[in-house]
Amino acid sequence: MNQSDLEVRRRHTGSHVMTAAVMMLYPDSKRGVGPWTDDGYYQDFDFGSEKISEHDFKTIEKKMRWIVNKDFKIKKRLVSGDEAKKMFSHDKYKIELIDGIIERGEKISLYDFLNDDGKVFYVDLCAGPHLESTGQLGVFKLMKLAGSYWRGDETQPMLTRIYGVAFEAEEQLQEYEYLLEEAKKRDHRKLGAELDLFTFSEKVGPGLPLFTPKGTFLRNKIATTIQNIQAKHGYQPVCIPHITKKELYETSGHWAKYKDDLFHVKGKQDQEFVMKPMNCPHHTQIYASRMRSYRDLPLRFAEVTTCYRDEQPGELLGLSRVRSITQDDGHVFCRVDQIKQEGKNIVSVIKEFYGKLDLMGEGNFWVSLSVRDPEKPEKYLGESKNWDKAEKFLEEIATEEGLNATRVEGEAAFYGPKLDFQFKDALGRQWQLGTIQIDFVMPERFGLEYVNEKGEKDRPVMIHRAVAGSLERFLSILIEHFAGAFPVWLAPVQAHILPIAEKHEVFAEKLLEQIRSVNGRAEMQDSGESLGKRIRNAQTQKIPMAIIVGDKEMETGNVTVRRYGEEKDEVMKVEELLSLLKK
Amino acid sequence: MNQSDLEVRRRHTGSHVMTAAVMMLYPDSKRGVGPWTDDGYYQDFDFGSEKISEHDFKTIEKKMRWIVNKDFKIKKRLVSGDEAKKMFSHDKYKIELIDGIIERGEKISLYDFLNDDGKVFYVDLCAGPHLESTGQLGVFKLMKLAGSYWRGDETQPMLTRIYGVAFEAEEQLQEYEYLLEEAKKRDHRKLGAELDLFTFSEKVGPGLPLFTPKGTFLRNKIATTIQNIQAKHGYQPVCIPHITKKELYETSGHWAKYKDDLFHVKGKQDQEFVMKPMNCPHHTQIYASRMRSYRDLPLRFAEVTTCYRDEQPGELLGLSRVRSITQDDGHVFCRVDQIKQEGKNIVSVIKEFYGKLDLMGEGNFWVSLSVRDPEKPEKYLGESKNWDKAEKFLEEIATEEGLNATRVEGEAAFYGPKLDFQFKDALGRQWQLGTIQIDFVMPERFGLEYVNEKGEKDRPVMIHRAVAGSLERFLSILIEHFAGAFPVWLAPVQAHILPIAEKHEVFAEKLLEQIRSVNGRAEMQDSGESLGKRIRNAQTQKIPMAIIVGDKEMETGNVTVRRYGEEKDEVMKVEELLSLLKK
Repeated sequence: MNQSDLEVRRRHTGSHVMTAAVMMLYPDSKRGVGPWTDDGYYQDFDFGSEKISEHDFKTIEKKMRWIVNKDFKIKKRLVSGDEAKKMFSHDKYKIELIDGIIERGEKISLYDFLNDDGKVFYVDLCAGPHLESTGQLGVFKLMKLAGSYWRGDETQPMLTRIYGVAFEAEEQLQEYEYLLEEAKKRDHRKLGAELDLFTFSEKVGPGLPLFTPKGTFLRNKIATTIQNIQAKHGYQPVCIPHITKKELYETSGHWAKYKDDLFHVKGKQDQEFVMKPMNCPHHTQIYASRMRSYRDLPLRFAEVTTCYRDEQPGELLGLSRVRSITQDDGHVFCRVDQIKQEGKNIVSVIKEFYGKLDLMGEGNFWVSLSVRDPEKPEKYLGESKNWDKAEKFLEEIATEEGLNATRVEGEAAFYGPKLDFQFKDALGRQWQLGTIQIDFVMPERFGLEYVNEKGEKDRPVMIHRAVAGSLERFLSILIEHFAGAFPVWLAPVQAHILPIAEKHEVFAEKLLEQIRSVNGRAEMQDSGESLGKRIRNAQTQKIPMAIIVGDKEMETGNVTVRRYGEEKDEVMKVEELLSLLKK
Repeated sequence: MNQSDLEVRRRHTGSHVMTAAVMMLYPDSKRGVGPWTDDGYYQDFDFGSEKISEHDFKTIEKKMRWIVNKDFKIKKRLVSGDEAKKMFSHDKYKIELIDGIIERGEKISLYDFLNDDGKVFYVDLCAGPHLESTGQLGVFKLMKLAGSYWRGDETQPMLTRIYGVAFEAEEQLQEYEYLLEEAKKRDHRKLGAELDLFTFSEKVGPGLPLFTPKGTFLRNKIATTIQNIQAKHGYQPVCIPHITKKELYETSGHWAKYKDDLFHVKGKQDQEFVMKPMNCPHHTQIYASRMRSYRDLPLRFAEVTTCYRDEQPGELLGLSRVRSITQDDGHVFCRVDQIKQEGKNIVSVIKEFYGKLDLMGEGNFWVSLSVRDPEKPEKYLGESKNWDKAEKFLEEIATEEGLNATRVEGEAAFYGPKLDFQFKDALGRQWQLGTIQIDFVMPERFGLEYVNEKGEKDRPVMIHRAVAGSLERFLSILIEHFAGAFPVWLAPVQAHILPIAEKHEVFAEKLLEQIRSVNGRAEMQDSGESLGKRIRNAQTQKIPMAIIVGDKEMETGNVTVRRYGEEKDEVMKVEELLSLLKK
């Protein structure tokens, strides 16, 4: 995340102001680390035998307010290792930190809070930077308290971590707290259970989601939407097994790098297999299954298939971080002179897909063009002239497609340059999703070939591309972005049909059939419950439309529709309704 | 395979006639086993230092003809173990076989070829039965020769196995040889490579097919055809991970039975996972993810997903026997009183699907109803009154659906009765494909529940169903059944468009677009090659239609179509062509 320099200073200072306040209240405490974070700052404390809880936040905040009001000047000071160790001799954690700085040969800098008369009110070890005085801190708030092992090591003492935030103005704090609250309400794990989208089973294991019919519908809808767009661009589905001999990854080079993060598979035989953590090496084997001519290229293989990675149990989180990762994967095998056209092809797919989700609006997305570090050519594999061409092609694509890409030197993969697409969700959070990566290395390692116009053997380029990336992670983002209230085209159930009384059920059944005949997705909620309760239930389930059927509707042949989140009903013709559901 | 008693006798006698002939020619040979098989018989020989090849078949057949012409009477004779061992004392293999019979406490029976005067011309150990005399053998032929370890054990001597067949009449032999030749031509491994449907990679490993775009199209077409039919019957797609903790199979009971045939998965953590060899236990976990009411039932979960089984390398065979098995799986959770309706539902799906493949014609399929062995009630789990109901329901389904099912006592699974569907392919080979299995046990083991009308907890029944079974095996059968010449609706490429000369290419391109706009699958074969060569190529690739576009077509707006396997062209309107491709 891009943080402005001012905000970094504010968070550093916030951390010191909080720590100074704590030290005034609990002078025997010792201090672990206290960095700034994506949205604020924290500090670890060893309170000894003292018990601290979030109930103490008020008192600490009061002291912080006092420090801010005093408007201490904040000044940097460099000291020797010996001086620093003398100053913090009573704090074993600080001593360890200082020893670390000395070992790395870095300068030891302190930040002082100074009284008007120049006397030191508070001092702490810090690389900075800071605001000029505590009075500039603005509004602040302590957020939560958690346990945290010293140096993240379970064998070390458990410290108390206090989290805080600081902003220039009150309204920013309010916005922050609103987004925090919203994020909690939209948590995909909570909504996933409430809307019956997916489940986990103790017996199956952590990080291995099972998708219910509604969640499966969402997965498939996302996948087929991408596949249908890609089909127009000449992508052809292929299908590979989920395991392989390790030889495949020895050739690709993944074995040496990632063998410890793979799931290893053993049967009765000596042969060792692994579960695939990516699909590109398998796809090269389909390419290599017959001799290719320059006329056959580009070949565009696409597949929605699941990979497996041995994530740490502690890192697993709902659908955001899973062990079974379904990718909307695809690989293009082409000639160097085809890179530009193929890249544009992929940009078109990404634009159409994210356009459908209303995420392609100005300011909603940004693109980075990752190229070589010109100082370190030895970091990259493949011929320099091909890199030049590929980088130029990607730059031209970005310009011609109006992507306004940020060129980032040194961020290319070792195998080739790339374009990455970041998108902003409804809460302003950014997610890297689509990617286009040129690869000169894999075709080399697998010895892929084609016969060129002159009848000579030549090497194809490989382009790795993802539109949604991991379907599980993408679903977690979508669920939170839409807060579970999916647009009509994406909603697993588009409409509840609510006959007011039993005598309206035949008419309602007919309507249901009409909707199903155009592949609409509606469910009947019969008159066993009161209409009010059924309307509320449609809202709770975030169903886009509740269709009310009573005497009036039977007379006129029109339907009354209450849309999700609306207070007012709309009356429309059945044809209008059907065309809304089909869109 | 169902063999008539007469054919079993003919094959036994064929084996003895062959062996007698060999012993006349190579009197020092020793004899291993010599059983009848699905289509003939074989005998294993130890020829000592002699070298025998298929070139010697003529000589052996001549001797066989002599034995047949002599019309020796064939008579059974029971002897004691000692007598038998004395008679065959020169043959260590026979001695081993005799010892085995003695050990099993069985009677030792010999079959004699007797001269008119009652003297024994030839004798061999055999349980029978046989024809009455060698003259009844009919026409016979030796087919092939292969090596075979004594008792199938690599540490034992390698014997020579000679295969033969025998039929009542010459035309049956001709029919058999024709089918054999046809089966060779239709071998799905050969056609799979020629038509570019799938491939295997040394680096990925044996038994793990990779499907190319055309093969993937076939897979998906089969799967979506079944899914679309099922959707009309209320089946809902779900999606499960391919691995699980072993606890899932400990609960289902599969662990105890099959743990040695599973692929075991290990990561960095202690937790042990396995690759799923079936999907039912996972599906129970989706059922169990929330409380179900009698009003929610039946729940019908369907999924096309891949299972993994650690098959022996020697048993792997193209797509017929693989390690990654994709199933069109589905499970219904219902009340006992819903079994009949759900069973009929599945029969409808099977009928519609196999009807589309023209395999539901009279005599093309047969159905078996497998029920309990009434003598051994202890073999079966679940309440007897539920079994009674389920068997009655299946019987009623079979009758009402006109399935003419054969009732087979004792063939039920231990968990419930079932209906199995067998189909005949174009070569008359029978394949068991569709199945409907009632299961009382799995819901019990997983403690599945629903709340019944009275508000009490009740146990659902589970129905396992498959339509095509394993997609890989099904594809191997389909490829051989159609000899790679798929019907228009199933063919990955339905048509080649052949512009006669360059000036016809614009018109041809327009036609291609029209075809694609109705989701037809056509490819342009431009005028770079001669028309004759391109027509032949379309035939070799078994493309259903070659569409020829020249001056006449451009004038009239009609198209000329050469169908696969036809010698004559058809002229039709573009609309007719499009409707043929859409069907």
